[in-house]
Amino acid sequence: MSRIGIFDSGVGGLTVHRAILETVPGLDTVYLGDTARVPYGTKSASVVTQYSLRNARFLIQQEIELLVVACNTASAVALPALRRELPIPVLGVVEPGALVAARVSVTGRIGVIGTQGTIASGAYQAAIRAARPDAVVTAQPCALFVPLAEEGWTDPEDEVVRGIVARYLQPLAGAGIDTLVLGCTHYPLLKAAIAAQLPGVTLVDSADTIAAEVRQRFPPSGAQVGSHRFYLTDLPERFLGVASRFLGRAVTDIQHIDL
Amino acid sequence: MSRIGIFDSGVGGLTVHRAILETVPGLDTVYLGDTARVPYGTKSASVVTQYSLRNARFLIQQEIELLVVACNTASAVALPALRRELPIPVLGVVEPGALVAARVSVTGRIGVIGTQGTIASGAYQAAIRAARPDAVVTAQPCALFVPLAEEGWTDPEDEVVRGIVARYLQPLAGAGIDTLVLGCTHYPLLKAAIAAQLPGVTLVDSADTIAAEVRQRFPPSGAQVGSHRFYLTDLPERFLGVASRFLGRAVTDIQHIDL
Repeated sequence: MSRIGIFDSGVGGLTVHRAILETVPGLDTVYLGDTARVPYGTKSASVVTQYSLRNARFLIQQEIELLVVACNTASAVALPALRRELPIPVLGVVEPGALVAARVSVTGRIGVIGTQGTIASGAYQAAIRAARPDAVVTAQPCALFVPLAEEGWTDPEDEVVRGIVARYLQPLAGAGIDTLVLGCTHYPLLKAAIAAQLPGVTLVDSADTIAAEVRQRFPPSGAQVGSHRFYLTDLPERFLGVASRFLGRAVTDIQHIDL
Repeated sequence: MSRIGIFDSGVGGLTVHRAILETVPGLDTVYLGDTARVPYGTKSASVVTQYSLRNARFLIQQEIELLVVACNTASAVALPALRRELPIPVLGVVEPGALVAARVSVTGRIGVIGTQGTIASGAYQAAIRAARPDAVVTAQPCALFVPLAEEGWTDPEDEVVRGIVARYLQPLAGAGIDTLVLGCTHYPLLKAAIAAQLPGVTLVDSADTIAAEVRQRFPPSGAQVGSHRFYLTDLPERFLGVASRFLGRAVTDIQHIDL
């Protein structure tokens, strides 16, 4: 069976891993979480690119046929460098998410939320406008969403969660968007809380769109169980606690590597 | 004049830098913020120790006479390794903070808040009990406080701030503490919000206690203006935006280094 590599700054990319395996169940995967340097979303494009190249070189050694950059920040800033350097196809989450948003929006008023790094890069904004020149894009960094999701505070009935989510989404509601791209792998965990603040708005989850793209390249073979290896750059203790929430099942076969 | 080195995982250590210069105004300082790997508080003791040694080696090359570990997480987990390896004295923030708390508490019921890494290390708990065997210590990790302070959401009247702070501090209020150690360099920015939730509780700020310790070793010379250099491991853009809030004045002479 085909083997693909997936990297993320940490645990968030497991939502992408999960969506890919739900779509192409038999695929073999190698996942790398750069937990020694997480998060990427607050760091410069230059240092995120440097880390992304290091991650990719490690995964190439695992004999993968395709690299999925699950991290939105890395997808937003490091894709050109990765495509220049790597001998295999590289998929990021930004372009598929932008294309879906451009397609499903009725009014062309599209919102994007992500880390500071992702929003500052302008990558989503540019990709949406390229796909749909009449689009009016409102972009909003949501710095507290990642720690909120990692802390497990995601209940839409929780008044703290509701207060934080409402504050970040208020400008998007004000802009009258009909479609919102969840531009960070952590945000699907806050989907219910986000939806509660933006009734009627279509939420686009990058994990689903990238999974559809992987399926195009690797049509399901009928095999139902692939092999899955997980590598982390920090010790796995904390990762294990959060991972099952993101992956939707227990994570096994985790190894620590120094990168 | 004497020169000291200060390192932190990022911008938070500037509260320590500020307190030291208010106490010993003429001191020369070299500050290193490991902004390419920030935060330390969610990472393992092993990787934090590795980063701390790398930071210390760089500062030693700057001909410092004393190293101040401003980061509570690094102080909690890496101090033995730093003291073993370095040829100069090393001060951490944990022990001074613990000693002050043990001394000022009337009832012996003492609270400690910090990052997940600091609290999990048990370093504050052990240092307080060593100084005061009858102490009853209640420790609480507050994962959202660092992003909250970096986002600038610190107003005690802000209902989101109040909601988050109340949730984390509730177990400490329930334990009837009379003294609370702010065991993270970011937390002084939330002091007013913390005090509002714990009326009558004495707050111990590590920045003040370490400054007093530096003063003991380097009595003020009468010089009023020292030289101050700042090094960062990531590009300085984001740091600059947050730094003045932490330092209380503009930061100049910043250089980027690859570590």
